[in-house]
Amino acid sequence: MRIIICGFGVVGQSLVKLFESRSDELYTKYGFKPRVVAVFDSKGSAVEDAGLNLKKLNDIKKQFGTVKNYSKSKNTMNGIDILKNVDADVLIETTASNYKDAEPGMSHITMAMKKGMHVVSVNKGPLALAFPSLMELAIYNQVMFKFSGTVGGGTPILDYAKNSLKGERITSFSGILNGTTNYILTNMGTGVSYKDALKDAQTKGYVEADESLDLDGLDAAAKLVILANWIMGMKVTMPDIDCTGIRKVTSEDIKKASKKNCAIKLIASCDEKLTVSPKEISKDDPLCVNGTLNAIAFTSEHSGTQTIIGKGAGGIETASSILRDLLDIRQEIGKN
Amino acid sequence: MRIIICGFGVVGQSLVKLFESRSDELYTKYGFKPRVVAVFDSKGSAVEDAGLNLKKLNDIKKQFGTVKNYSKSKNTMNGIDILKNVDADVLIETTASNYKDAEPGMSHITMAMKKGMHVVSVNKGPLALAFPSLMELAIYNQVMFKFSGTVGGGTPILDYAKNSLKGERITSFSGILNGTTNYILTNMGTGVSYKDALKDAQTKGYVEADESLDLDGLDAAAKLVILANWIMGMKVTMPDIDCTGIRKVTSEDIKKASKKNCAIKLIASCDEKLTVSPKEISKDDPLCVNGTLNAIAFTSEHSGTQTIIGKGAGGIETASSILRDLLDIRQEIGKN
Repeated sequence: MRIIICGFGVVGQSLVKLFESRSDELYTKYGFKPRVVAVFDSKGSAVEDAGLNLKKLNDIKKQFGTVKNYSKSKNTMNGIDILKNVDADVLIETTASNYKDAEPGMSHITMAMKKGMHVVSVNKGPLALAFPSLMELAIYNQVMFKFSGTVGGGTPILDYAKNSLKGERITSFSGILNGTTNYILTNMGTGVSYKDALKDAQTKGYVEADESLDLDGLDAAAKLVILANWIMGMKVTMPDIDCTGIRKVTSEDIKKASKKNCAIKLIASCDEKLTVSPKEISKDDPLCVNGTLNAIAFTSEHSGTQTIIGKGAGGIETASSILRDLLDIRQEIGKN
Repeated sequence: MRIIICGFGVVGQSLVKLFESRSDELYTKYGFKPRVVAVFDSKGSAVEDAGLNLKKLNDIKKQFGTVKNYSKSKNTMNGIDILKNVDADVLIETTASNYKDAEPGMSHITMAMKKGMHVVSVNKGPLALAFPSLMELAIYNQVMFKFSGTVGGGTPILDYAKNSLKGERITSFSGILNGTTNYILTNMGTGVSYKDALKDAQTKGYVEADESLDLDGLDAAAKLVILANWIMGMKVTMPDIDCTGIRKVTSEDIKKASKKNCAIKLIASCDEKLTVSPKEISKDDPLCVNGTLNAIAFTSEHSGTQTIIGKGAGGIETASSILRDLLDIRQEIGKN
């Protein structure tokens, strides 16, 4: 399988490591042989039609902070150039999520689809702003579009709801979809002020460069858009979400909740309305998880409420989601 | 799809209700049209080659306590007679689990497989005592063997671990797999004595007729056998489980645990060893759920630990698991 990776941060590098360390097993068990033919990061590219040397690729990235130095010629092609000129089966889109215009991810994905490439995205921006139309574009071009890593990191929340609950009607769901705000609120629950809890989360590297994505609930809202489209068949985008972040949650609010055996969590929910906002939930509710954990509770018509809890982020975890998507694509291609 | 149902308790009746209430949707969405050609309960049978009238079937069962009265002739064929004489595609085995010889379920399942029928079992007995050989028999006879409802009731735990975590290596797991003992231990945590907690659970109908199945951990051990075989590829049966029930847990133990912010739960775990026994776990652990809830935490190589929580039993919930298995079979058959 010929693969182009756009964006080469922690997730991309973890994926390449997975390809390397598990290559024998992936081939014997799944008939899957990834050949990474091009990688693009913000400073340049590495391209090799016969497949890049994965160990060298990660070494170069670590040494120079960019894959540009992979070849002596210091390739400066950007993502679009690569997608135009390099032949591949799958685009893996891992550039940073942005909820203004979703670029450059949006252009990468649409260009790849138009060229007949399957797409795996862990970039939430394009999905949050244009899920319904991207889905149509994929269908029109008869390509597969996968995005397991966008919600729950390595925890296969989307697949669970779509496949494991097949034959069942999910009537509503709600969840803690952003680990950073959960970490801050959990710490506030132990008496730490909002300011100090935020600073602590920043020190630990949990907060996005644009802190608004976490604190104003945009990351949770983007995930809610993806869940609502994929699982509930809604056709919605970011503006459809009623979104409030955690900036106004006070220690006082949390103390008050605690007296009722409740905690305040940033809850994304889908019932009659789509909302993201801080809510009191019982500490006995399985949904009430602490630290950076994510959790989501699906309520279905016949099987009751089911809660899934896991780490919602992390390079290697998200890379394992991408790998699952690639194996799905491999399997589908194999059928033809 | 021609179906024989062996055993017709709450689960069987719930399934028939599901078939009835969702028949249009099941046909249009999945091309699935169940035709129940024979049903057997402990007192007799109902057989109709063109398919039984499902409403009448449930009405008769409710009125007479047996399906024998479905036809005037009062059919007294037992499960084996039916399997010998009635032609069908799938056996749904729902007779009571028994861990001594697994009968009559074991004979039903082996007979059906030898006749080339696919099998869906929610009866744990045959799987607990002979999982490896039943799997071989299914493969030898080229039939599908499904048992989603045996673990987690309506919560698709087996499917999650097998399919949603595809491409991932599960290294260990542990869980609360029996709702009855969880209910008793939870109540003991509020100061109720073992004796009173047990009585309360019995009054609510949570305890099996043979209380040993719950209290001595046999039910949890049977589920552990199924998980270990299916998910970890082990070839084990009941005698391989080191099993201790909850009879010796005292209020004193629970108080002591509580001082360390822990609860005592009956934990089934698979790491180097396969054990079922009461263990202290932190109340902050996502696994620490209360009441009759079940929970299981899978630890995988790359995606960290993921916990699934849901109702572990219930007629309609387990019936919805059977339905998912049938839809899987329908889909597989459709491929040929």
